[in-house]
Amino acid sequence: MSDYRHPLADAEFVLNELVGFDDLCESLGQEDLNAEMASVILTEAGKLGSDVIAPLNTVGDHQHPVLGELGVEETAGFSDAYQAYMEGGWASLTSDEAFGGQNLPNVLGTAVNEIWQSANLAFALCPLLGQGAIESITHHGSDALKQNYLPKMISGEWTGTMNLTEPDAGTDLAAVKTRAIPNGDHYLITGQKIFITWGDHQMTENIVHLVLARLPDAPAGVKGISLFVVPKFKLDAAGNPAERNDAHCVSLEHKLGIHGSPTCVMSFGDNGGAEGYLVGEANKGLAYMFTMMNHARQGVGLQGLAVSERSYQQALEYARERLQGTRKDGSRFPIIEFPDVRRMLMQMKSGTEAMRALCLTAAAEIDRGNQARVELLTPIVKGWVTELAQELTYLGIQIHGGMGFIEETGSAQHYRDARILTIYEGTTGIQALDLVGRKTLVNGGTHLAELLEEIGADVAEFSQLGGRFSLAAQRLTAALDAGHQAREWLLENSGDPLSAGSVSVNFMMLFGYLCGGWLMAKSAMRAQAKLDAGEGDPEYMSAKLNSAQFFCEQLVPRTTACLQVIEAGSEAIRDAQF
Amino acid sequence: MSDYRHPLADAEFVLNELVGFDDLCESLGQEDLNAEMASVILTEAGKLGSDVIAPLNTVGDHQHPVLGELGVEETAGFSDAYQAYMEGGWASLTSDEAFGGQNLPNVLGTAVNEIWQSANLAFALCPLLGQGAIESITHHGSDALKQNYLPKMISGEWTGTMNLTEPDAGTDLAAVKTRAIPNGDHYLITGQKIFITWGDHQMTENIVHLVLARLPDAPAGVKGISLFVVPKFKLDAAGNPAERNDAHCVSLEHKLGIHGSPTCVMSFGDNGGAEGYLVGEANKGLAYMFTMMNHARQGVGLQGLAVSERSYQQALEYARERLQGTRKDGSRFPIIEFPDVRRMLMQMKSGTEAMRALCLTAAAEIDRGNQARVELLTPIVKGWVTELAQELTYLGIQIHGGMGFIEETGSAQHYRDARILTIYEGTTGIQALDLVGRKTLVNGGTHLAELLEEIGADVAEFSQLGGRFSLAAQRLTAALDAGHQAREWLLENSGDPLSAGSVSVNFMMLFGYLCGGWLMAKSAMRAQAKLDAGEGDPEYMSAKLNSAQFFCEQLVPRTTACLQVIEAGSEAIRDAQF
Repeated sequence: MSDYRHPLADAEFVLNELVGFDDLCESLGQEDLNAEMASVILTEAGKLGSDVIAPLNTVGDHQHPVLGELGVEETAGFSDAYQAYMEGGWASLTSDEAFGGQNLPNVLGTAVNEIWQSANLAFALCPLLGQGAIESITHHGSDALKQNYLPKMISGEWTGTMNLTEPDAGTDLAAVKTRAIPNGDHYLITGQKIFITWGDHQMTENIVHLVLARLPDAPAGVKGISLFVVPKFKLDAAGNPAERNDAHCVSLEHKLGIHGSPTCVMSFGDNGGAEGYLVGEANKGLAYMFTMMNHARQGVGLQGLAVSERSYQQALEYARERLQGTRKDGSRFPIIEFPDVRRMLMQMKSGTEAMRALCLTAAAEIDRGNQARVELLTPIVKGWVTELAQELTYLGIQIHGGMGFIEETGSAQHYRDARILTIYEGTTGIQALDLVGRKTLVNGGTHLAELLEEIGADVAEFSQLGGRFSLAAQRLTAALDAGHQAREWLLENSGDPLSAGSVSVNFMMLFGYLCGGWLMAKSAMRAQAKLDAGEGDPEYMSAKLNSAQFFCEQLVPRTTACLQVIEAGSEAIRDAQF
Repeated sequence: MSDYRHPLADAEFVLNELVGFDDLCESLGQEDLNAEMASVILTEAGKLGSDVIAPLNTVGDHQHPVLGELGVEETAGFSDAYQAYMEGGWASLTSDEAFGGQNLPNVLGTAVNEIWQSANLAFALCPLLGQGAIESITHHGSDALKQNYLPKMISGEWTGTMNLTEPDAGTDLAAVKTRAIPNGDHYLITGQKIFITWGDHQMTENIVHLVLARLPDAPAGVKGISLFVVPKFKLDAAGNPAERNDAHCVSLEHKLGIHGSPTCVMSFGDNGGAEGYLVGEANKGLAYMFTMMNHARQGVGLQGLAVSERSYQQALEYARERLQGTRKDGSRFPIIEFPDVRRMLMQMKSGTEAMRALCLTAAAEIDRGNQARVELLTPIVKGWVTELAQELTYLGIQIHGGMGFIEETGSAQHYRDARILTIYEGTTGIQALDLVGRKTLVNGGTHLAELLEEIGADVAEFSQLGGRFSLAAQRLTAALDAGHQAREWLLENSGDPLSAGSVSVNFMMLFGYLCGGWLMAKSAMRAQAKLDAGEGDPEYMSAKLNSAQFFCEQLVPRTTACLQVIEAGSEAIRDAQF
């Protein structure tokens, strides 16, 4: 159990100094929006997060949702918190104005979302996945579907879910078996879906399920999957929830973490078929999934940042308070004075700062419509941030010593909650394959070369700083070089069908640490400029210099090891004998 | 839930090819013992482990011990399993013959212990800690204490516990407050101890607590701590448990893992004082703790190996059975065919093999009385093996995808259980400080130089193999060089009081990966020689070549990153601003 306070100063720094928020708003034609307003919004969100949503984090961990007579009954308190979230207008920040949204830039929505995710990962998963459902309908739904569903989904009055996975079809959606039979103006859906997050609850009047299923004449494999809207309650002529649809949660999973989030086995059509409505064209379901994947995957990357930040705050508080060293005069001092505890705390601090810089940079590229860069950064945000989150939440426990292993301390919850992040919305392996394949090999490495060029220019500038940053710049330059070499290795070895899959995770991690180092170096340059100009909070700016130095000296060297592993290629993996 | 089968072939290979078990037995004057007998012993232990102890692993995870009227009631089934373990004579393998022990070499006891720890970490903790209590009394107790307690502790009829930690005294034992007041032929102990593993249970007639406490006139700090034997039941004139002593478990911790192991808050002297008997001399308790520390710490390192092996076996089985890829003809294949899944499995396989090689090598140095090498390897075994175990049990979940996050799958238990290993018996930070300070700086780096010289000779020989091992040898040579540089850096920077603590964990991890690579390279040379001579199981030997190649290519490069971090020194840590 710990308090949570949103690190507003760091979010503001990234928005202003790395993203260039004011310029972005102007370029989007949103002249009435600026950094000052963003800070007001973040401050308000921070209050709701700290005061209302964060205190429920431990509650949800202990009091799991249960499957009762009404269906899934969520943890006590969650419904009131959801009402407060919805009534505050937080559900609709970035959605389409035509349907009641506030049309704020994605990067600001992302910065706000960090707060909900830090406050309560299990709770905040509900709107995070609802966003995917909203996007599916917004981009691909008919006008009727939009009119019927979007306003209440965007306001948050109804939540949305994504129903993809089946017992035999996880990563491999080609194996989807759920059927959709035409029946007049709708379809009858029959089948079972698993791992459906927030698949049922009592917080809202309706739940809108987006379901992948096959039409009777559909081709085999992924080219025969269609997307359907299946509401929990069918709508009456006035558009209000009325008759119960044939879609039910039939059991809940017992999970390692995110206990407050009900993970449902959903059964469609136990009583004849659930009424569903086709989204867009038949057999294009998979393509529609891909259009929303960047958002969803960046969202999970953001969860990695959020849970790391929460874990860090708790560990820092403990390290400041826990007396465990004894001086020669018998007086005691807190463990934060031990160099190795400081090292762990700095790894957490600089790591979360690098994550935040990367998450918001990638989110802003969505606003800019810089599609190639979005495509490239998304698997890095999802893959690298969530992998690093495992290490940081691990350190959060480690700093607590034996107390960290005791559940009441609360640090273990962050560690358990974080564990899902490298799995759902595509495992780390899937992100890495996406990066090396679809995002690099397919375009001959062009997009990656452009990124490397941009990083190179900043690294050259960073190398001019000298002084305390001499070694940091040397490490970052080596990492940049490793990035170039990894890219070239991949292109040169594309003839070996096993090489991409064998090196992919190390390739992705290399670019993660390189991007983190790059953005921390940029941060150091901006902070130094601020200090030189006597602008901003000097204490914050000075801490940023330290944090950037630490990240480049202590985390960026991992790129060297990644490159060496990549160079080993596929031989020992191909010949593996188990 | 998964079956466990002891990897006998690998244990035999390490005992024969790396440890030289027959020669060791001869040098110990145990001519009646040899590798063949060791295999018989391991096979029998494997049966008990697989058939009786392993099936209780999941049971203990779900059915925690409870504090009832009798005290702590352990998980159902544990008592019967303990009886089988004790009656099989497994408790006394390595103990002193004078008190009923079997006097087997420590390395064989360690190889057998791997089985209990893999089968059920929570269960096997009980005898593991009892071993520390036995050693304390064996090395430092009076003849009377030995006669009264050792025979039944060694046979396993009574268990033993270690009572060090207090709420304000974890790593910092200087703060121990528990009091011991002289009272005739004994002492009255008063105080509270926390985190006492298996502090109470109903499996045996008595429990012998070893307790750190202060005498009234004791000096402040660590020089005023004495060690006492405090039995749960006082002994009558015939040496049998009789009157209940004033030592009770007053509550149980709710932990992240090892649920089957009761972690007790022990209260001594709530009713006037617990009867205790001084071990050795007054005020020497801390020194006595140190004498048993190598065993205990190597034991926890071994737990890291054991839980990784268990996690690997489960992941491998899943990867072979889980169909998730679809070929173009629509047929499906298991996930073990995906290169990244193979990479993760090889990381687990080669990692556990390197751990086993290191654990048994270090255990044999105890038999050889090679004290300097024991002192040097112990923090590496404890620190590096348990840290690597975090990553391997993490991968065990990852290979399962979404199923890994579901508790019923069982993979998450290994991950949760493993989490304590980098904390208890001295955190990773403590191990690392021990390695750089007491084990290196204190002797001017001599012992480390000797180890590096020995590794160097083997690496030079390994480099002659060429062929598939060319890159592996190159990586290992670089790691050896990194080891030399790290040692020199440490010695050169010993003037900076913060440098050792700032670099210690990276220093320890560097030597862990180097030692792992060294022993895997040795293994490859022995396996190649066996293959060339047409000896042994060619399939096993060939798999060992692959595993050694993988380890050197994929894990040894991390030493480069460790060295780079070491070279950054203490500056960014000293100047950290939180």
